Amino acid sequence: MTLFDLSGYLAQKRRSIEAALQECLRFALSENSRLREAMAYSLMAGGKRMRPILCIAAAESVGGSQDDVMAGACAIEMIHTYSLIHDDLPAMDDDALRRGKPTCHMAFDEASAILAGDALLTLAFEVLASDRFFRSHHPKRTLEAVRILSHAAGLAGMIQGQMEDIAAEGAFLTFDQLRHLHNLKTGALIEASAEIGATLGGGSSRQVRLLKNYAKDLGLAFQVIDDVLNVEGDPAVMGKAAGTDQIKKKNTYPALMGVSESKNFAKKCIESALHSLSDFDNKTNSLRAIAMYVIERKR
Amino acid sequence: MTLFDLSGYLAQKRRSIEAALQECLRFALSENSRLREAMAYSLMAGGKRMRPILCIAAAESVGGSQDDVMAGACAIEMIHTYSLIHDDLPAMDDDALRRGKPTCHMAFDEASAILAGDALLTLAFEVLASDRFFRSHHPKRTLEAVRILSHAAGLAGMIQGQMEDIAAEGAFLTFDQLRHLHNLKTGALIEASAEIGATLGGGSSRQVRLLKNYAKDLGLAFQVIDDVLNVEGDPAVMGKAAGTDQIKKKNTYPALMGVSESKNFAKKCIESALHSLSDFDNKTNSLRAIAMYVIERKR
Repeated sequence: MTLFDLSGYLAQKRRSIEAALQECLRFALSENSRLREAMAYSLMAGGKRMRPILCIAAAESVGGSQDDVMAGACAIEMIHTYSLIHDDLPAMDDDALRRGKPTCHMAFDEASAILAGDALLTLAFEVLASDRFFRSHHPKRTLEAVRILSHAAGLAGMIQGQMEDIAAEGAFLTFDQLRHLHNLKTGALIEASAEIGATLGGGSSRQVRLLKNYAKDLGLAFQVIDDVLNVEGDPAVMGKAAGTDQIKKKNTYPALMGVSESKNFAKKCIESALHSLSDFDNKTNSLRAIAMYVIERKR
Repeated sequence: MTLFDLSGYLAQKRRSIEAALQECLRFALSENSRLREAMAYSLMAGGKRMRPILCIAAAESVGGSQDDVMAGACAIEMIHTYSLIHDDLPAMDDDALRRGKPTCHMAFDEASAILAGDALLTLAFEVLASDRFFRSHHPKRTLEAVRILSHAAGLAGMIQGQMEDIAAEGAFLTFDQLRHLHNLKTGALIEASAEIGATLGGGSSRQVRLLKNYAKDLGLAFQVIDDVLNVEGDPAVMGKAAGTDQIKKKNTYPALMGVSESKNFAKKCIESALHSLSDFDNKTNSLRAIAMYVIERKR
């Protein structure tokens, strides 16, 4: 397990995913337009590609291949990107910068950013359903992926989370409330990534359930460590400022229970995530390594 | 054909569709929230329900039932509604009223309107894909419906149309440019309504193609008559002001070729629409009556 080359694995998957995303945009809109530029600007802006990598690794864990799930992986990243574009809008979080670059509505304009978000959300489902993008031989599995994705991205997950986040602004949240909010806002789509990967990869319902549990714990640990890094991370390593959560009086785990207790909590989440993988064979080494990375990461 | 009771048919379908839309919202989000209120406010605001009725009538034309396609009918109306909510936003067309009522962002706020639109767009695909809403026994047909809907609502249709509409503001369009814009902005979803109905209803690929052609002509005639009514319609009958297009210097068919020539053009479109139905039996009488209604309507 310690021999698994995680950084090589992540880099290779990231390359495949970014090539596939580029292809999707090219297929979707052959002529160059302001709309496609705005979509590409945000979709190709980098980022860890954690969700699509999780999707592919989950598929591989149940014996599926990267090709089986690339449609799902791209769809998930499109949904994630659209949510960032819309969350950054002036009427929402009103952010001018993301990953050190102007946000979509700053680089283009508000109308383009709204439409680029709508278009990415819509394209996610077209990429899943249409053979124009990726060939699929399993309509039942694909339809299940559409169901999982629309459920997690909608009222049962992401959108409801954003609505509650706006409503909770300035309020003091308890641990349970904070966890509930994160489960909706970011957890649901991370869970869905593993669930879609396992489903499109041909996993049994038990495997799908276990990998979904793994991703739920992983997503929570990821968020907790994000908060911890904001307190004690090295800005030079992270590529972004530290201490910003405290200035904004954001509800975070360290603010609720301290840095050390937060780290312990993240470790317990990761133990639980690894426990969900105990029945899987060595095809799951990527997921095991990703779990370890989440609590060891410095950025 | 003249004996077909169109107004009874439309009223009955409208009732069924509105009951089904209510059910979808209730299933999607059991607890009442500001987000569900905003979604319901726009989704249940009335309107002709032309697209879902077209979807059901197309299904019936190929021997399918209303139950076979209610998921598709609701999904289409959700997509249509989300597009109205986002188009009305300050950054887009900046409209304060729609159908005589405050627009969604005026009745709630901008963030709620953006999220309500996103949620309706997402819910459209969940309603199609999930058995929680309507039972489906044809994953292949359902997946095809997801493909058709995402294609028509996205870069190949509605969203691209809205982008080009914004870009064309203040410019003088030729007949071909105007038709191209309408085909994208409203035509694509109207075509998709018939295509999805015929597909979920179990139509052959030839039937699907013919009904799609019918809807293309119908949608164009509908738009032309909309423009004509804005010039010479009776505000009391229409329930909205006339002459507004001219004040806003909108590109319209009457402005391009006069009222009388516009009416002739709409008639030719309807003749072509009826021609696409010539091989169908009397199960298609609803679609024939709808075509006649489109050019005879006063509102």
